[in-house]
Amino acid sequence: MPYRAPTSDFRFLMDHIVGFGDVAATDRFAESTPDMVDAILTEAAKMCEEIIAPLNRAGDLHPAKLENGVVRTSPGFAEGYRAITEGGWVGMSASPDVGGMGLPMTLTTAVNDMMSSSCLSLQLNPLMSQGQIEALEHHASDAIKELYIPKMISGEWCGTMNLTEPQAGSDVGALRSKAEPNGDGSFSISGQKIYITWGDNDFTQNVCHLVLARLPDGVPGTKGISLFMVPKFIPDADGNPGKRNSLKVVSLEHKLGLHGSPTAVMEYDGATGWLVGPAHGGMAAMFTMMNNARLGVGVQGIGIAEAAYQAALTYAQDRTQGKAGGSGAIIEHADVRRMLATMRAETYAARAIALMNAVAIDMATATSDAGWQARAAFLTPITKAFGTDIGIETANTGIQVHGGMGFIEETGAAQFARDVRVTAIYEGTNGIQAMDLVARKLMDGGEAAFRLLEEIEQGAEAAKTTQPELAEAVWQSAESLREATEWLVAQTDLNQRFAGAVPYLRAFARVLGGHVHLASAMAGDASRVKLATFYIKRLLPEHIGLLAHVREGGDDLLAITADDLAS
Amino acid sequence: MPYRAPTSDFRFLMDHIVGFGDVAATDRFAESTPDMVDAILTEAAKMCEEIIAPLNRAGDLHPAKLENGVVRTSPGFAEGYRAITEGGWVGMSASPDVGGMGLPMTLTTAVNDMMSSSCLSLQLNPLMSQGQIEALEHHASDAIKELYIPKMISGEWCGTMNLTEPQAGSDVGALRSKAEPNGDGSFSISGQKIYITWGDNDFTQNVCHLVLARLPDGVPGTKGISLFMVPKFIPDADGNPGKRNSLKVVSLEHKLGLHGSPTAVMEYDGATGWLVGPAHGGMAAMFTMMNNARLGVGVQGIGIAEAAYQAALTYAQDRTQGKAGGSGAIIEHADVRRMLATMRAETYAARAIALMNAVAIDMATATSDAGWQARAAFLTPITKAFGTDIGIETANTGIQVHGGMGFIEETGAAQFARDVRVTAIYEGTNGIQAMDLVARKLMDGGEAAFRLLEEIEQGAEAAKTTQPELAEAVWQSAESLREATEWLVAQTDLNQRFAGAVPYLRAFARVLGGHVHLASAMAGDASRVKLATFYIKRLLPEHIGLLAHVREGGDDLLAITADDLAS
Repeated sequence: MPYRAPTSDFRFLMDHIVGFGDVAATDRFAESTPDMVDAILTEAAKMCEEIIAPLNRAGDLHPAKLENGVVRTSPGFAEGYRAITEGGWVGMSASPDVGGMGLPMTLTTAVNDMMSSSCLSLQLNPLMSQGQIEALEHHASDAIKELYIPKMISGEWCGTMNLTEPQAGSDVGALRSKAEPNGDGSFSISGQKIYITWGDNDFTQNVCHLVLARLPDGVPGTKGISLFMVPKFIPDADGNPGKRNSLKVVSLEHKLGLHGSPTAVMEYDGATGWLVGPAHGGMAAMFTMMNNARLGVGVQGIGIAEAAYQAALTYAQDRTQGKAGGSGAIIEHADVRRMLATMRAETYAARAIALMNAVAIDMATATSDAGWQARAAFLTPITKAFGTDIGIETANTGIQVHGGMGFIEETGAAQFARDVRVTAIYEGTNGIQAMDLVARKLMDGGEAAFRLLEEIEQGAEAAKTTQPELAEAVWQSAESLREATEWLVAQTDLNQRFAGAVPYLRAFARVLGGHVHLASAMAGDASRVKLATFYIKRLLPEHIGLLAHVREGGDDLLAITADDLAS
Repeated sequence: MPYRAPTSDFRFLMDHIVGFGDVAATDRFAESTPDMVDAILTEAAKMCEEIIAPLNRAGDLHPAKLENGVVRTSPGFAEGYRAITEGGWVGMSASPDVGGMGLPMTLTTAVNDMMSSSCLSLQLNPLMSQGQIEALEHHASDAIKELYIPKMISGEWCGTMNLTEPQAGSDVGALRSKAEPNGDGSFSISGQKIYITWGDNDFTQNVCHLVLARLPDGVPGTKGISLFMVPKFIPDADGNPGKRNSLKVVSLEHKLGLHGSPTAVMEYDGATGWLVGPAHGGMAAMFTMMNNARLGVGVQGIGIAEAAYQAALTYAQDRTQGKAGGSGAIIEHADVRRMLATMRAETYAARAIALMNAVAIDMATATSDAGWQARAAFLTPITKAFGTDIGIETANTGIQVHGGMGFIEETGAAQFARDVRVTAIYEGTNGIQAMDLVARKLMDGGEAAFRLLEEIEQGAEAAKTTQPELAEAVWQSAESLREATEWLVAQTDLNQRFAGAVPYLRAFARVLGGHVHLASAMAGDASRVKLATFYIKRLLPEHIGLLAHVREGGDDLLAITADDLAS
């Protein structure tokens, strides 16, 4: 079943739901006319449908391999990568000052969604470059910017992120990699990094590693960490790849999914690197990259949800079984209909949240308004965790719709579930996202949260004549969420917040989903009204149980000791 | 991390929660003294820990293979199978009349749970034989019983179930396999069957296939289907494997998990078979086998949940990361604690429900009481669907607890998730289970459901002085479930029931979980009180959202057309 890019959903969401009109009305993004948006969506859709999606199965069946120290990528990936870079999709949101197209992150988000649906293993490569470009734009010296960013945008080179070490995962501050000054402005980087996505490949001339390491005078913990650009080949005077740097891929991981994406253990053995941002200021630069990547990873989940949904829908329309009535296909069975409607309604909600997030980023970029910045920061962990959870759940439901065929690898349904699983883990586990939400993102006393809740209530207020039942349900859910938020903000012991962090994030996403579905029922056709009704009446009530969990706090939970658990 | 059989949970549940005392008090099961129960649990635990669990990874890495028409099984599986059969675990619940041990299904359920935790791929083989033995006991001629059952119990031979054909999955009535009388009392069976678990092996002398096929005068649909015993080798006059039958394994499936279990496409080409049960009465016989297997498959989910939980707990106690406090291990983080407590509380609830189900079967066997039969029939789809859903969710959470390591196959966390996934699909998808629950199992006007609800309310009543908060929560949940059940029973249009069937089944399991946890808080030590508190306050509230979904009925859902979904 071929992938069909959901361009009409993107257009509808941008035009009616997430306020893209405000973005296009800014000077910064004045070029994003309706014609431009159409051209972008149409071109990206064409590439994804025709060139990228056909590579997905090959990546799974023929994993990237390490042969004599060289990474051999999956069949067709080099051509796929070339199509992506030639389309200009890597640097579409990079500033025109450094060779980018300067387009809104909202559009990049839509394109990343489509590329993720098509071939997640391959899409990870440009996603890493996009994040690196943004980090360099904000933190690197002009010399580094001018040398590296244009090559990353053209696709001649690509980028990676090197944070994790065996003893330093979620706890980045525990890292041991070292950087010694060479006396010529460069540094000598040593250490081992693990889980390095696209740590190497055989289709770019260079691989640019952004590596976190500690300078000799760096204090322990995150405040003593610096960021370095460490290219595979050291650029010569003309900016071309020169001498091989002292770094190598030690091994590739054997993973549950994403077989086409080489995940490397990297060894830096006195490799030459250059500081990006100030000494000991590495975490700030890395957070720029990670925030970008967190939105991007949430969108990966949504992209897989879309692909899994399309495959399940096609199967359910073709497969006849039982006294289904109507077409005779299994889609006529109420329970299959329930699964498909859930998949579609959840994917739609998660996609709308991701685009709201991107719009907030674009508005922050265009206006430097602190309110938009706060909104973007607040929505990022929600997009990441909810988008990836929905990706996992939807892919899992996709297997179920396929029945016995879902367990057979040839069908492809299982690959979606295997590939998407890691998205809830990398770029900060979803637990870390939730902790970020209830701690750092509520440090403003809940201001960003309450502003969102006000908008949700205004939306419900506006809908109460046309869609009284749906409006009332959304309004009530926002009230419950407000109470839970007030309770969380009042907890000074962070463990009281952390114990219910994951259910809180999910409940917030649930209510946001109700908000966007209600808006969709107000602005859309009969199909959108039906889907909104399904979501608001059947899925939104999940927030009640989730908020009950939140309100329990941490005492009972932390009273359960390791001994209790082992008994 | 080695598997440790949770024998103390089994003992506690049997002694205090699920009423095993009543089973042991019957004449039929008078041998099930506390000493006998101890001996069974201890022996089975030892075998699972020492012999079976070490085979699990080898089964994944070295899948069963078809070579020149012969199935080659995974390394060590032959020895593992021998240990299971020599321990007497295949026929432990078979009647002593046919060479079985005549022990309660409750004990078989505990042993199957342990074997599933240890190596699900291998355990599937004796599970199929157990189901076949029960079907033969109830439906086969004396000649077939005497010839086949003792060999199946000894492990010399093993059994399979052959229902599915490419066009006939959930819709068994659509099958096309044919049976022609040979005139000598035997039949000639022809057709293709798919998804045949353990369709062949290289460690038993014979493989006994129970095959559904249609006689020449069989009407279309399920009422024209008959069941046949079709052995791989036709027994000679002495009952030893003789002439090769006209059947073969065409191919083995390439599956998401359970690599050690060969899933075959079988071709019957005029193979010799014998009728089991009356002509055109195949479905009744097959249902005996499937009901047994449905309990067994639910228990597979629980077994994997246990194994995934143990692995995650060990990892969380060993892995240090972040400012965790206490031991410094990640188990000190509130969110990790939440995940582990959820895994343990859910596994415990699902296991208690499975054992309640087994006790009902045993009481029905011992007393022929219609009330116990109705309870067993009511609980079977709940055990199957909830047990397997919890297996999938818990394995998924296990991956999350492992962080990045969870995505790496060497860890083993991902294998649990891959292996368990099909349990929600085979032996009737979980959607089919839920439809069975709200249609056939409520055909008594809800009597079996209401009797269970009365017991839940009585339990809450009894607990209200000692555990007032928990008792109140459980009582309220039972009331809500009662209302939803009354509403369902009143719906004559089955689609009104089917639309919310899956959420209803889940809500029923949730409330049953509250019931058993409350009983556990009343009878158990401080650890059990803490776990019950966690479950009842944080997980039980999920039923509210689920029942909201149920009460919506089918209209809005079925109004969503295929066109709406595709738009």
